[in-house]
Amino acid sequence: MNKERNICIVGLGLLGGSYAMGLTDAGYTVTAVDVRPEAIRYALEKGIIAAGAVEDFAPLLAGADAVVLGLYPHALVDWLRNNQKHLKPGALLTDVCGVKSGVVEEIQGFLRPDAEFIASHPMAGKEVSGVEHADCAIFKPANFIIVPTEKNTPRGLAFARGLAETLGFAHITQLTCAEHDKMIGYVSQLTHAIAVSLMNANDNTHLAEYTGDSFRDLTRIAKINENLWSELFFLNKENLIAEIDQFSASLEGLKRALVENDETELKRLFVQSTARRRLFDKKREAR
Amino acid sequence: MNKERNICIVGLGLLGGSYAMGLTDAGYTVTAVDVRPEAIRYALEKGIIAAGAVEDFAPLLAGADAVVLGLYPHALVDWLRNNQKHLKPGALLTDVCGVKSGVVEEIQGFLRPDAEFIASHPMAGKEVSGVEHADCAIFKPANFIIVPTEKNTPRGLAFARGLAETLGFAHITQLTCAEHDKMIGYVSQLTHAIAVSLMNANDNTHLAEYTGDSFRDLTRIAKINENLWSELFFLNKENLIAEIDQFSASLEGLKRALVENDETELKRLFVQSTARRRLFDKKREAR
Repeated sequence: MNKERNICIVGLGLLGGSYAMGLTDAGYTVTAVDVRPEAIRYALEKGIIAAGAVEDFAPLLAGADAVVLGLYPHALVDWLRNNQKHLKPGALLTDVCGVKSGVVEEIQGFLRPDAEFIASHPMAGKEVSGVEHADCAIFKPANFIIVPTEKNTPRGLAFARGLAETLGFAHITQLTCAEHDKMIGYVSQLTHAIAVSLMNANDNTHLAEYTGDSFRDLTRIAKINENLWSELFFLNKENLIAEIDQFSASLEGLKRALVENDETELKRLFVQSTARRRLFDKKREAR
Repeated sequence: MNKERNICIVGLGLLGGSYAMGLTDAGYTVTAVDVRPEAIRYALEKGIIAAGAVEDFAPLLAGADAVVLGLYPHALVDWLRNNQKHLKPGALLTDVCGVKSGVVEEIQGFLRPDAEFIASHPMAGKEVSGVEHADCAIFKPANFIIVPTEKNTPRGLAFARGLAETLGFAHITQLTCAEHDKMIGYVSQLTHAIAVSLMNANDNTHLAEYTGDSFRDLTRIAKINENLWSELFFLNKENLIAEIDQFSASLEGLKRALVENDETELKRLFVQSTARRRLFDKKREAR
């Protein structure tokens, strides 16, 4: 358990709300700041938080040993710039952002020297948003990635790790900003770009009755929050473009095998994808 | 129920075996022909078939009112050319092929005039093969598509529909060969081409520990039988290439929005994919 007993969640959405729920359950004193009065009201009624505020939240921040910033990347940076003056001396901060470029360096550049921001990324979520859908069960099978820089201390790292352990994440790892954003460009952003593009390829809604599991699996994530994901895509634009280019070249290779009636090559591609996917299953089972 | 009471399954794999199981349960007399003696032995032991043969199967065919061809496309055409002489006069035939071009016209071109081939496509399956994994439950949520031509008769159509009803398919529809192959090029073949290409884009196995549901959903079908799927892809090559081109243009459009920092366009793409995918959910729920 962490020494930071009073934790303030800023942004009581699905993730922030699930953090609040898990931390309250674990015995922490949790407070929250949100722009939606109904989010605060709901969380108070459900006993997810001990106190909350929409305005005049300075006392909550002043009392918090740690702050979890559950905001979209740009909103997070702006909010912290405007409100860091209210932080308790020595406060620890972390975030939930899916991309770290443009967020971590920026924050660590302007943050008060007596506070510490340790970036982290809970790879968990749902297709719905808001504290009303908060659910700590989403953390059980999920990865928690800590993204430290040379500005972080052992105390900051211990806080992030303790947070992940308390919330019950299956797997806690550590990556640099660059490693994190490259990985996320492939396993998350490229897959969303593909799902969106498959859905947009043509007006295919008349085919709904013929779709099977494959198509539904490939397009489930085509339902996407345009505000959050456009921020995430642009913040990680260079990695994502490189991944799209690699994927397009791979698909182009498959098309070439078709055009050239190259059965040997087409089979080789199928054998390779099958072997790699099997290795994925094994690696995950071994965890 | 169909009037054809004695049904011979040629090719006792996952689909053929599941047909045999469902038809035997429904009171039909089911026989089977397969190249694997152990498949026949297994099906006899489990009571899935009443009789079976690897060689000397002419008597089984001669006794069958209907024949279900559970073979890969090219093998199916060759097998039927060599063995149609054994068919009972008036026999009805159907298949399970995932592509109809190069199969239906070919067969209907050489088939004995006293027999009738009515093409159909059960859109069901599993990631495993063989009668040992046969399971009629795979038909429950699935589509059954009847693909008649001008050579088919009301008797042939009634047989195909009765077969699908007996096996318990959720949804029975009728398409022309061209409609079927165009649809399948999009909902099934393009999705498999994408999954394979995503898995092949680079050597990503070290990222297994970071993958979440999205990546696993998008690559599940990258485990693919190279012999069956290379046949299916080449038989439907023109439709599939057109679908790959449309999808690539769509993904290229998303990339262009990124390159040009066009936030409005990126959000428009997300909003469009979200709306279309929601409509898919609704259409499927309405079924």
